[in-house]
Amino acid sequence: MDRNNIAQSFKELQDHICARLETIDGAGKFIEDLWFREGGGGGRTRVFKKGNLIEKGGVNFSEVMGDVTSGMRQGMGIDADTFFATGVSIVLHPESPLVPIIHMNVRYFELSNGEFWFGGGIDLTPHYIVPSKAKEFHLDLKSICDKYDLSFYPEFKTWADDYFFLPHRNETRGIGGIFFDHKKPNEQLSKTDLLNFCLDLGREFPEIYDRQSREFREETFSDDHKNWQNIRRGRYVEFNLVNDRGTKFGLVSNGRTESILMSMPPVAEWEYMNTPSIGSEEEQTLQLLKKGIDWANF
Amino acid sequence: MDRNNIAQSFKELQDHICARLETIDGAGKFIEDLWFREGGGGGRTRVFKKGNLIEKGGVNFSEVMGDVTSGMRQGMGIDADTFFATGVSIVLHPESPLVPIIHMNVRYFELSNGEFWFGGGIDLTPHYIVPSKAKEFHLDLKSICDKYDLSFYPEFKTWADDYFFLPHRNETRGIGGIFFDHKKPNEQLSKTDLLNFCLDLGREFPEIYDRQSREFREETFSDDHKNWQNIRRGRYVEFNLVNDRGTKFGLVSNGRTESILMSMPPVAEWEYMNTPSIGSEEEQTLQLLKKGIDWANF
Repeated sequence: MDRNNIAQSFKELQDHICARLETIDGAGKFIEDLWFREGGGGGRTRVFKKGNLIEKGGVNFSEVMGDVTSGMRQGMGIDADTFFATGVSIVLHPESPLVPIIHMNVRYFELSNGEFWFGGGIDLTPHYIVPSKAKEFHLDLKSICDKYDLSFYPEFKTWADDYFFLPHRNETRGIGGIFFDHKKPNEQLSKTDLLNFCLDLGREFPEIYDRQSREFREETFSDDHKNWQNIRRGRYVEFNLVNDRGTKFGLVSNGRTESILMSMPPVAEWEYMNTPSIGSEEEQTLQLLKKGIDWANF
Repeated sequence: MDRNNIAQSFKELQDHICARLETIDGAGKFIEDLWFREGGGGGRTRVFKKGNLIEKGGVNFSEVMGDVTSGMRQGMGIDADTFFATGVSIVLHPESPLVPIIHMNVRYFELSNGEFWFGGGIDLTPHYIVPSKAKEFHLDLKSICDKYDLSFYPEFKTWADDYFFLPHRNETRGIGGIFFDHKKPNEQLSKTDLLNFCLDLGREFPEIYDRQSREFREETFSDDHKNWQNIRRGRYVEFNLVNDRGTKFGLVSNGRTESILMSMPPVAEWEYMNTPSIGSEEEQTLQLLKKGIDWANF
């Protein structure tokens, strides 16, 4: 299985996810932009606008290759002449504040010195945390992880807690999920196994989001809910522009800005010292934006 | 004139600016939060909400001191045991899309090794660029600069073009203005002169903003204007979180997040591939978001 097979299966994964999301949404459609990168490769950006469930979102495939830039040498510690990278990257912002934001990414990286690895993750950002649903989300991820390696879920869950964190707010982005990087084959897991792990995550992704959204998407919500959603979307913007390594790397390495920033919400608000009142739903959510919560056993 | 005199004059500058802005706005009032910094010093954050002219804004004074942190050593190249820093920092987001966003900052920095310097700047971000007003803005700044040193305006104007720039968008933030840093006394200009230059900029700031907003603030605007304002506010968020050294430094050095992010607009929007039609007002503005425009002679 070479890099072209991997890119091909990621492309098919993008097709699968887009088709499922269109069905689940019921109204919106993806529009596609092909783009080519100076230096080698390109991608298929697919953007979703104004559906029933999803207000704005993107499901992006990319396959890029070329000379290792000085930014990559410094920023990623890469020591090789050329690289190849392919992946699928998703962010969905729902219309309803009662439905969570979701993010997924799977990626494969290969260097001219022979090194290669997989990375990825899925994390959920509810505007309002419902503990039973957070538990379900983590159990969904755990059951995929456990098919491959029992150490994956605990390791990748902690990694997500540390990664999806805003130090300047002392808050996690949401209820976390899993995050992994630099995963290489070993005696237990072949290259094919690692690819299949990524593909399993991707194939399950729309079903997970369907389960997380189904019971909330038709519920009525208030202006207060909407206002809080926009405040939380502001935090999502902060994370992506200040803390997310992928976004920062994309922007400084001359990536395609419109594809990278498809992760931005349609709208976001900032209010000085927004402080939910004690005991409110909003304050209960803030209390749960912490590292180290054992959601699978909550 | 020691650091306490300088801090005192910056505090008075904050008072002056707040009083003038309340008068110019005619409706809104500042609310004040005092804060204290672990390690030394603190500040007076003043936030403006929902005025006639200004929808959201802040006029912040701070005076902080303490041990030089490793972040400051690396990020700012500082080689000393302790530091002292004081300044006034302002961002105003107007209600009307026909009125520009404005930013101002003046600051004084002192190290235990005896080094000290001034820095600052004013820049204007019109949602719609009106060339005659852009020229007026630059001439206003030039006339303050010229009172001190004829080299200031050309030098600081170029510095602003380079600083207030979004590489990932290949756009300037707005029509620039002036930006300067590490300004130390020399044979021509004493420490007092440099302080007076900062104070002159600050005292003129509300009058400059009054002149930039007066003829546009009562004009009616459309939903399209408002939508474009929110897209441009999104770019303002991108600049502040991705490119602005002050914001980034504040966030990573455990500054007071709510004071640092008072610069965020009340609301911002992101739309995939927003592309104004050829010849539209919006497209004309985009054409002018470029470095090197000689606004003073436009």
